[in-house]
Amino acid sequence: MFKKITIIGMGLIGSSLARAIKKKKLCKNLVAHDLSSSVLKKVKKLKICNEIELNIKKSVFNSDLVIICTPLSSYKQIILNIRNNLKKGCILTDVGSAKVAVSQIVKKLINKKEIIWIPAHPIAGTENSGPEHGFAELFKNRWCIVTPINKSNQKSLKKIINFWKKIGSRTQCMKAEHHDKVMAITSHIPHLIAFNIVGTAANLENDTKSEVIKYSASGFRDFTRIASSDPTMWRDIVMNNSKQILNMLNKFNYDLNKLKKTIINKDKNKLFKLFSKTGKVRKEIIKAGQDINLPNFGRKN
Amino acid sequence: MFKKITIIGMGLIGSSLARAIKKKKLCKNLVAHDLSSSVLKKVKKLKICNEIELNIKKSVFNSDLVIICTPLSSYKQIILNIRNNLKKGCILTDVGSAKVAVSQIVKKLINKKEIIWIPAHPIAGTENSGPEHGFAELFKNRWCIVTPINKSNQKSLKKIINFWKKIGSRTQCMKAEHHDKVMAITSHIPHLIAFNIVGTAANLENDTKSEVIKYSASGFRDFTRIASSDPTMWRDIVMNNSKQILNMLNKFNYDLNKLKKTIINKDKNKLFKLFSKTGKVRKEIIKAGQDINLPNFGRKN
Repeated sequence: MFKKITIIGMGLIGSSLARAIKKKKLCKNLVAHDLSSSVLKKVKKLKICNEIELNIKKSVFNSDLVIICTPLSSYKQIILNIRNNLKKGCILTDVGSAKVAVSQIVKKLINKKEIIWIPAHPIAGTENSGPEHGFAELFKNRWCIVTPINKSNQKSLKKIINFWKKIGSRTQCMKAEHHDKVMAITSHIPHLIAFNIVGTAANLENDTKSEVIKYSASGFRDFTRIASSDPTMWRDIVMNNSKQILNMLNKFNYDLNKLKKTIINKDKNKLFKLFSKTGKVRKEIIKAGQDINLPNFGRKN
Repeated sequence: MFKKITIIGMGLIGSSLARAIKKKKLCKNLVAHDLSSSVLKKVKKLKICNEIELNIKKSVFNSDLVIICTPLSSYKQIILNIRNNLKKGCILTDVGSAKVAVSQIVKKLINKKEIIWIPAHPIAGTENSGPEHGFAELFKNRWCIVTPINKSNQKSLKKIINFWKKIGSRTQCMKAEHHDKVMAITSHIPHLIAFNIVGTAANLENDTKSEVIKYSASGFRDFTRIASSDPTMWRDIVMNNSKQILNMLNKFNYDLNKLKKTIINKDKNKLFKLFSKTGKVRKEIIKAGQDINLPNFGRKN
């Protein structure tokens, strides 16, 4: 499919992509770059790439596809480092969870006549970080959202869409603005809420805190999973989608205040109504194949 | 261990208890009561009890242990119905998720010289309801909190503690007030937050709502599991622990407003600090054996 692919950033997503590319034989030569030489050492040991390259300029030399898999705050420096070393006609893509802000940064910095910038975002991941936690099936049956920035590169766009399909994903094109709005409610707010409640618990007096751990199976533990995601990644997502996040956070807060009033007023019927309507949403998610239909996510604990 | 046990309410918890009692042979005669004859029909088919009895007064006749496994709002009527039919020396217990309010109701209504009231709360469950979803291992390695109301019934208290140990649980005695405080943060607030965010998503315009389902694997789906728990049960928990819940909700809200300001101020370092400290809590939960150490709760989707 490609002669040479370069992955910049070999964490959970980058290393999973490498494994999937290798498994599906999507290129002849797969090069991995990471800022950290210890990460690259791990990657070498895992044998999931043809080459490792600590020099970012060298890593993209002659590549047909360059995939940025790093936190959003590093994009600008990465582009400044590689833009004069990218091959003419090279497709540049990414896997970032916020699209509007970084897409504009990249657009401004590259030579649009020579480099084809097609942002993308696979809706996949786990709470773990690092190349040792990646696996080839991470993207299977998951959606990959592609947010092309203009209509001119239909051929390359098709290539990117096919690339994700071969990896096992379902694909959807949409505008970056819309992506950021949808992700604010499906991903960014849930993570913020989880970080916040786990933070609230961590602020409690020591006695209660240890009991929170002990009795976490009553609901709390579900929140701690996503609140243990990579802090750098999440700091960058929040910084790069703050407008949509604050907008959705206001909606959430408005509803929470209404709920608080309902509790203060001891309005039984209203509580029942709210608690009844939410069960349907889970059924739809299971029907759409987006979660497992087993109690407690099928976990054996 | 007991001659006759009566379970009142054969939902997920009641039916799981029945299965566990049968499996561990903790009584000679196990009687199941439920308000719903269709539930009792299911119970009969499942063969998890010796008898089913639609008449609540008859169901408790000569029982050594009566376990209430119904929503909290039904306790008062149940006690009024059975109090003159309970055997002298009978132990009365429950599995409710809020203890202070109902414990007082029961205390007032029973003859304390004849009936030994020992409230309890097994920290176990799934998002499913109904006897068909129960299983004997539900309580295994889970905590059961016992909140005895006075010091006079050490023998019966020991018996209840042993009962839960034989079922596979770990047990802990504490005051009802403390139980309600700890559960507010570990269980009640997480559920309310989940109900609330799923409600916020359900209120969005139709287009976005369908996308919330589609892209829910990015975090949102974790919340929909607990937001699909039984609405009657949760209405009653909130009504019976509103003081502690509102107190913790204020703490959560205070932290959320601080987080909002941090986002508005684009304070990168503060965000990173918050997102870093929460990962430790998950590690402690896994270390304490209260969750599974597999990415995405080990789910295969």
